[in-house]
Amino acid sequence: MANAVRALAMDAVEKAKSGHPGLPMGAADIATVLFGRVLKFDPADPHWFDRDRFVLSAGHGSMLLYALLHLTGFPQMTMAEIERFRQLGSRTPGHPEAEMTEGVETTTGPLGQGIATAVGMAIAERHLAATFGSDLVDHRTYVLASDGDLMEGISQEAIALAGHLKLSKLIVLFDDNGISIDGPLRLADSVDQVKRFEACGWAACRVDGHDPAAILAAIEAAQQSDRPSLIACKTTIAFGAPTKAGSEKSHGAPLGPEEIAGARRALGWTAPPFVIPDDVLAAWRAAGARSREARAAWQARLAARTAEERAEFERRAAGLVPAERLDAALAAIKQRLAADPKDRATRASSEFALETLVPALPELIGGSADLTGSNNTRPKGMPAFSPETPAGRFIHYGIREHGMAAAMNGMALHGGIVPYSGTFLVFSDYCRPSIRLAALMGRRVVHVMTHDSIGLGEDGPTHQPVEHLAALRAIPNLMVFRPCDAVETAECWALALAAAHRPSVLALSRQNLPQLRDATAPGNACAGGAYELLPAEGGDAQVSLFASGSEVAIAAAARRLLAERGIAARVVSVPCFELFFDAPQERRQAVLGTAPVRVAVEAAIRQGWDAIVGSDAAFVGMTGFGASAPAPDLYRHFGITPERVAEIAAERLRQG
Amino acid sequence: MANAVRALAMDAVEKAKSGHPGLPMGAADIATVLFGRVLKFDPADPHWFDRDRFVLSAGHGSMLLYALLHLTGFPQMTMAEIERFRQLGSRTPGHPEAEMTEGVETTTGPLGQGIATAVGMAIAERHLAATFGSDLVDHRTYVLASDGDLMEGISQEAIALAGHLKLSKLIVLFDDNGISIDGPLRLADSVDQVKRFEACGWAACRVDGHDPAAILAAIEAAQQSDRPSLIACKTTIAFGAPTKAGSEKSHGAPLGPEEIAGARRALGWTAPPFVIPDDVLAAWRAAGARSREARAAWQARLAARTAEERAEFERRAAGLVPAERLDAALAAIKQRLAADPKDRATRASSEFALETLVPALPELIGGSADLTGSNNTRPKGMPAFSPETPAGRFIHYGIREHGMAAAMNGMALHGGIVPYSGTFLVFSDYCRPSIRLAALMGRRVVHVMTHDSIGLGEDGPTHQPVEHLAALRAIPNLMVFRPCDAVETAECWALALAAAHRPSVLALSRQNLPQLRDATAPGNACAGGAYELLPAEGGDAQVSLFASGSEVAIAAAARRLLAERGIAARVVSVPCFELFFDAPQERRQAVLGTAPVRVAVEAAIRQGWDAIVGSDAAFVGMTGFGASAPAPDLYRHFGITPERVAEIAAERLRQG
Repeated sequence: MANAVRALAMDAVEKAKSGHPGLPMGAADIATVLFGRVLKFDPADPHWFDRDRFVLSAGHGSMLLYALLHLTGFPQMTMAEIERFRQLGSRTPGHPEAEMTEGVETTTGPLGQGIATAVGMAIAERHLAATFGSDLVDHRTYVLASDGDLMEGISQEAIALAGHLKLSKLIVLFDDNGISIDGPLRLADSVDQVKRFEACGWAACRVDGHDPAAILAAIEAAQQSDRPSLIACKTTIAFGAPTKAGSEKSHGAPLGPEEIAGARRALGWTAPPFVIPDDVLAAWRAAGARSREARAAWQARLAARTAEERAEFERRAAGLVPAERLDAALAAIKQRLAADPKDRATRASSEFALETLVPALPELIGGSADLTGSNNTRPKGMPAFSPETPAGRFIHYGIREHGMAAAMNGMALHGGIVPYSGTFLVFSDYCRPSIRLAALMGRRVVHVMTHDSIGLGEDGPTHQPVEHLAALRAIPNLMVFRPCDAVETAECWALALAAAHRPSVLALSRQNLPQLRDATAPGNACAGGAYELLPAEGGDAQVSLFASGSEVAIAAAARRLLAERGIAARVVSVPCFELFFDAPQERRQAVLGTAPVRVAVEAAIRQGWDAIVGSDAAFVGMTGFGASAPAPDLYRHFGITPERVAEIAAERLRQG
Repeated sequence: MANAVRALAMDAVEKAKSGHPGLPMGAADIATVLFGRVLKFDPADPHWFDRDRFVLSAGHGSMLLYALLHLTGFPQMTMAEIERFRQLGSRTPGHPEAEMTEGVETTTGPLGQGIATAVGMAIAERHLAATFGSDLVDHRTYVLASDGDLMEGISQEAIALAGHLKLSKLIVLFDDNGISIDGPLRLADSVDQVKRFEACGWAACRVDGHDPAAILAAIEAAQQSDRPSLIACKTTIAFGAPTKAGSEKSHGAPLGPEEIAGARRALGWTAPPFVIPDDVLAAWRAAGARSREARAAWQARLAARTAEERAEFERRAAGLVPAERLDAALAAIKQRLAADPKDRATRASSEFALETLVPALPELIGGSADLTGSNNTRPKGMPAFSPETPAGRFIHYGIREHGMAAAMNGMALHGGIVPYSGTFLVFSDYCRPSIRLAALMGRRVVHVMTHDSIGLGEDGPTHQPVEHLAALRAIPNLMVFRPCDAVETAECWALALAAAHRPSVLALSRQNLPQLRDATAPGNACAGGAYELLPAEGGDAQVSLFASGSEVAIAAAARRLLAERGIAARVVSVPCFELFFDAPQERRQAVLGTAPVRVAVEAAIRQGWDAIVGSDAAFVGMTGFGASAPAPDLYRHFGITPERVAEIAAERLRQG
């Protein structure tokens, strides 16, 4: 059966003239044990909620997964798709893409992401089992990881977190083939992975990766452990290839006809390319059908629940955040704000919003990378998630931004959970690869990122984001919100949670900001991405001032200064570029207005603003790194003040 | 003596009403042993090349370092500066900044960066000792790291690399205080750090961090090890504070007058704020003078070298890359290109350039994150750096982009080396925090980043950068080069190496590109960031086509198509935005030209281009993620073709 995987991998890579045959051939025995005898799944229902999750962290070995999906009978994964490996529009792209292919649990390829994402899946399982009962949620998460996955730093964050949380249903199979792209692994690495995982609280062992009985025994032992488990499987890359087995030459390029012919002989595989002998296919299809009864039993258990329980479970599983519930929550937050208006940092406004949202939406699982009090992501009374309290909803991720972001992806992919968490905006750089994957996969994760400008003050340029808003806005499909006050913060939260297929960043201030919006007005003004917050008074607008976040108050003050000089100015708040670009042309035009002078204000670099205000507009912001000083000193030092905004607007108007 | 450190830290944080007193007070005993008895340094010559390097990886404890610099007598670090802690323009910013303060070896604060940077310093020492002899280069690198440093994933990349390379002169002191911002470390972590480091090939031990004799003994043992060493020092955060010692409350906020008074009593410290008793100061100053003789002896050894040896050592130490040497190398590369014109991927053109540059500049130390053959960063015959061959100049970094980028920073900070290395452009996301620090510190590191667009083809969207050029261009002070052919690649290499105080990224193609430039022309056309590559023919230009990298050939082909339609178009190559922005206004205007229609072409998102071509210009590029398919299919699929560029230009011209 394993040779069927090897043959398909060789043939598909050869036909595509591109790809990675080495890993599928080397790990075929591991995968055959896993998919043939262990994994709980049913190709007839790829989305069955209680299936085991399998993550191919070594995404370059995509043909391993595609071969398994075909052989076990996933309807989408026809032989025609295998033959179209790496071609435009196929379900068999170069690296596995979750949104493209049923049976692919997460998009992998950037190394380390898979194993870290799997940690989130295992967290989700643990939490949901505690919430809904293990008769409905009781599955494992398996990972196939390569040495590259374990060299990436994110793997340390992931395994330390998993070990700490005692995620005993997480089992990592390490394809220990001793080969990386540059050659033998000893060129670059000499880590004792078993010892390293043990140091992080894992059970760990070594087996022969070509001995199915040993692999199975190790998995069965791992299933009994009270800790997450590493099984280091010693394998030969491109097992079966006559001259390239055990060599980096088989890693990332087709083997070539001669080598493939030799491998067929060595493996005793006589079928032509893309043909699986009937008996082998039958055995695989039988393996694919192993869990059919388990699924039926699960469905019966679900059906036996009360209608209410079933509805809630199915709602959560489907990722349905009801619009009416969000609307009601937003209204409730605004009502509370109307009763308690005061200056608040938007990070505090976010906590204020969460005080309503967290009770309203049990699927919200919060967290912070050891900045809980600074990020304000833990409203009072939200219990921590821990091995002893798996129903807890707040995760202490530790100082592990990258592992946190990947775990959030895993929770969102697993389903039943809408994860949010917190760090400083400047540390978005630490977790960009995972944020990018969330955007590529179209998953709803919400990153609360506070201390969003020089306004954080004394911590200085290492902690002051100046380019991060631009860099995040550059990621396709990611929504970057930068609300200006408590009302906008609540509205942006509602928009982030409503977007089932987009990740979000909420960029929030450390410093206090005035409440600019009337909390009693209904609706969601932020939904269009930008809107006129303050109209021109005393005639047509001569100046349009655009700003986001903490600079909206500066624009509002500049508008007053301009009014004193007899210049009518309006203020446009721009909480979300992406939603503005999505808005209809005429709405965008109305928001932009017709004033001859436009000035944009943001305590960050200009890049990105031209697409809204035009390259001829003036811009007041940053052109380089910040500095360490109290925030008011910095705003003065860098010239981001109402006085300067008003002066520049007036000067532009004079010049005509 | 340690209490002097504690007092200054308490008082400075209190006066600034901002900062982190806990770490300096907790680690004062460790630091006193290190600076008082171990570290080889001389405040009279902070830049002495053979000094030991000390890296405060836990940068939030900056007052620890400032106190030590003051007490040991660094001239810049006056008591007035201590009193101006965290104020605008002081030498005592919130986190240590290398460019700001003598005695600060590297900018820290973003956790994990310090320890990873220190690995590069230790590599530099090892290499230079092998190159110039241990009579001139023989020093150690010490790191003070916190639990946060060790939780960050980059720490794993760093320690695995250091262990593999057997960097025995690297000694990490772990301030094991069991407290993080959220509270007790056990909330988020349960890693056995000693075991983890041992698994990575380190010597590791535990000591009482308040027992100077034990600390000293551990350091002396570490100095004898043939491996890098971890000394886990059990400490009490805010040691001496009556109620906040051992609590997260002392981590990141002033202690308050009452607590400070209590700490003074507990420590027996009677001097007023910002006053160091004479006897204590004298003891510290004596400690600061410990290595004066060692420095004199070193200077004598340097003076005893031949004039040629001394000149080369001093040139390297000063980071002087002579312009004439670069000019000659560039001319030689162009001569070789003129003799061998052919289509080349710019990654291959980069290797072609390195074949000349590496022999010409012995300070170049190359590398790759396990993509050597793909990045083309290792010209033939360049020996590997390893424990056995420390004079080798090519580093197998393993699949550790973040650790690699930080190590490069460390080499550049150490001096004597100009590091370059390689990965895929999409993985710039994995090492952004280190690239950002290089930009903030103004250090010459060169990142070769290949596979720079959808042109990489089948590997698909996980590997195809679309937003990365914009995201990198957003980082202040970083130069992003995207050359269009072999001649531009050589010119960009010369510019990157000439910029002593800026880091660079070279974004290079996987796919072959035609040689568009005449290799026989002298000078460096890329120096202005953009230039007219192909003039309009048959009259004034009606269309200006702007492009970078692999799309310049597409623009050139579009120009021909337009010419067939009787439309005169010119092509402007834009290899470096940053240098273009730095160019004089009139030069910029000349390059932009006066054609009524402008079209920019880049196989990436538009963000950033508006600043050059204006927001009214047309743009042909990407608006979302790529896909997995052969590269020519993708260019057609996403409409980045000469035909489409020509059509859009012609249509714009028709519209007027």
